[in-house]
Amino acid sequence: MPRAPDSLFQELAPQVRARGPLVLSLTNFVTANECANALLAVGAAPVMSLDRDDAADLARVASAVVLNIGTLNPAFMEVALAAGRTARERGIPLVLDPVGAGATRARLEAAGALLSETKPTIIRGNLAEILALLPGAVGAQKGVDSDAAHSPENREKCARLSRERGAVVAVTGPVDLVAQGEKTAEIPGGSPLLTRLTGTGCLLSALVGAYAAVAPEDPFGAAQAAMRHLKKAGEAAASLLSAPENLGEFRVRLFDALATLR
Amino acid sequence: MPRAPDSLFQELAPQVRARGPLVLSLTNFVTANECANALLAVGAAPVMSLDRDDAADLARVASAVVLNIGTLNPAFMEVALAAGRTARERGIPLVLDPVGAGATRARLEAAGALLSETKPTIIRGNLAEILALLPGAVGAQKGVDSDAAHSPENREKCARLSRERGAVVAVTGPVDLVAQGEKTAEIPGGSPLLTRLTGTGCLLSALVGAYAAVAPEDPFGAAQAAMRHLKKAGEAAASLLSAPENLGEFRVRLFDALATLR
Amino acid sequence: MPRAPDSLFQELAPQVRARGPLVLSLTNFVTANECANALLAVGAAPVMSLDRDDAADLARVASAVVLNIGTLNPAFMEVALAAGRTARERGIPLVLDPVGAGATRARLEAAGALLSETKPTIIRGNLAEILALLPGAVGAQKGVDSDAAHSPENREKCARLSRERGAVVAVTGPVDLVAQGEKTAEIPGGSPLLTRLTGTGCLLSALVGAYAAVAPEDPFGAAQAAMRHLKKAGEAAASLLSAPENLGEFRVRLFDALATLR
Repeated sequence: MPRAPDSLFQELAPQVRARGPLVLSLTNFVTANECANALLAVGAAPVMSLDRDDAADLARVASAVVLNIGTLNPAFMEVALAAGRTARERGIPLVLDPVGAGATRARLEAAGALLSETKPTIIRGNLAEILALLPGAVGAQKGVDSDAAHSPENREKCARLSRERGAVVAVTGPVDLVAQGEKTAEIPGGSPLLTRLTGTGCLLSALVGAYAAVAPEDPFGAAQAAMRHLKKAGEAAASLLSAPENLGEFRVRLFDALATLR
Repeated sequence: MPRAPDSLFQELAPQVRARGPLVLSLTNFVTANECANALLAVGAAPVMSLDRDDAADLARVASAVVLNIGTLNPAFMEVALAAGRTARERGIPLVLDPVGAGATRARLEAAGALLSETKPTIIRGNLAEILALLPGAVGAQKGVDSDAAHSPENREKCARLSRERGAVVAVTGPVDLVAQGEKTAEIPGGSPLLTRLTGTGCLLSALVGAYAAVAPEDPFGAAQAAMRHLKKAGEAAASLLSAPENLGEFRVRLFDALATLR
Repeated sequence: MPRAPDSLFQELAPQVRARGPLVLSLTNFVTANECANALLAVGAAPVMSLDRDDAADLARVASAVVLNIGTLNPAFMEVALAAGRTARERGIPLVLDPVGAGATRARLEAAGALLSETKPTIIRGNLAEILALLPGAVGAQKGVDSDAAHSPENREKCARLSRERGAVVAVTGPVDLVAQGEKTAEIPGGSPLLTRLTGTGCLLSALVGAYAAVAPEDPFGAAQAAMRHLKKAGEAAASLLSAPENLGEFRVRLFDALATLR
């Protein structure tokens, strides 16, 4: 019988806190700060890099590597490929966040190259990004109903991507979906305000890396635990606002909750 | 009879929120996060890029493009020129923020190249930056009284830049000034604390892009509406502080106000 | 008789506020925002750059330069060397933050090159980073007890680095240590939460630059004053939290305190 996301969160969160895994995040310049602070909040140790040799050396001592193509360019790709290959050789968890795949050819090609060359353990994106990675998906995923990650049709597409790439596929939306081969799990909850702050997707990918670092044998469960952590933090933060759209307050309370939820 | 900035804000703010325009911001790495969160707060959709092909593709689907030279370098210029030219070809609003023009030769040359090659719809800066763009301005604008954007002499200089470049010129200060050809408008209000946070000028340029995206026929009015939005948010934030120089609180309340002001 | 860090802080903080020194920070993309906001909070004027010519020009008008290798790469090194050499030629304070020196060969070599080529006035790091800079230190400083900067053995090592490099050495930890030749000083206080936010070390290096800018004849005292400022701000922020691990609140209160402490 599958375990509930809440139970996975309660089991793994203390392990992240106790072990403080080093997570190498090669990520975009817009939200790197959120990724670093989220990792620190849950008890992990963040490190970032823009240099190929530096990143490869860090990947040799890290417990997980996260690749995020949000502000990709040729130099970034060289760094990401070097770190990703090192992670793959060492067998540590490797998370790919294909930010905006489907929006431009450059992003789709970058995501494709990283998938083929580094074989990520977990792919974490929103539904439009995930569907863009399926063979035969063409061009921008305009009009995709991002609410529907857990619809029967999209669930099957996510599971297909998981089988084709040999990776756990973790899809965010009003209800999150995690797929591994034939298995799928849903994570409800959260807050719509999470989509009104920049970087909540990026920081979730970083957290997925931290959770996978302490449960490398179970990336399916680790992704669920991290996703539940963020959803619970979003719920807690939204419940504390003095006005329902106070995004400044929401950001503060989100990091409070990431650090204090047990 | 000219319309008051408050009236323009009240008309355009709901349109930004309703349409959620995609704004491509090619901006500096110090305050990109503020730009993204400010765009999200007012209901727009931010996207950033560091790659020439990626940025040009994004400019083909964006509703406005913002170029900010705060941390320019040769690679940035290539990306900015590609996106700026695409914006110009498509006729969508293009905003230039000439951060620090006049402080160094590199910045002045970069601003000049972007002005000539991409012909921005709106130029948004502080007085020293704007005056540096006038022909014959030489070297650093030390000693410029940045309070004086709306003095008769500076008002005429800003209007002259507008006529020479065929652009709306939007100048921030204790009283903001917007010039288009012979027309000028003043936006009073705001808070001195806005100059004590990094990135408030950058995020304003991003907001100007969002407002111009929903009123492409009226960049003169759109700039005023965006500037009034920030000034109102600054006023609201400053009024809520538990101590008058609490910059941490001010930042939180500023984003609350950007998201909630109607 | 040596002066207490509190007395140095009380003397220099008003001078930073009154003079508003321009501090050029060539720093990593993860925490540049914190550095800029911290400089603004204490009354200094931040500027950043990613371009060699731009940075060299800015170093010609700045009152201090800070080099931080947190996300070094070949392009960064070229920019940092140009600005560092200009600072050295002009005799203005130059601060080196050797982030992660000892963690990778790339970082150690970068720190070594900047030490040799630019001869910093002040080296600011944690104990592992500082010890890695000593001749004969090899590889990662795993297992270093970072609490022990002021132990007799480590104190002597920091003083030795100071003598060998002709620089003030400023080491952060539960008790901070500053060494200049044979002299050392301790700065107690602070909060363990300072290590749970990203960028507090980076922003401290920026503040050390601001303080040294107003006391260029006394980098030993300036470093102590800046370090005491951050420790006091951490204490004030920690005392105001509604729950002891509320990292979101802590960040807000830290910037409040940086701006308001006298």
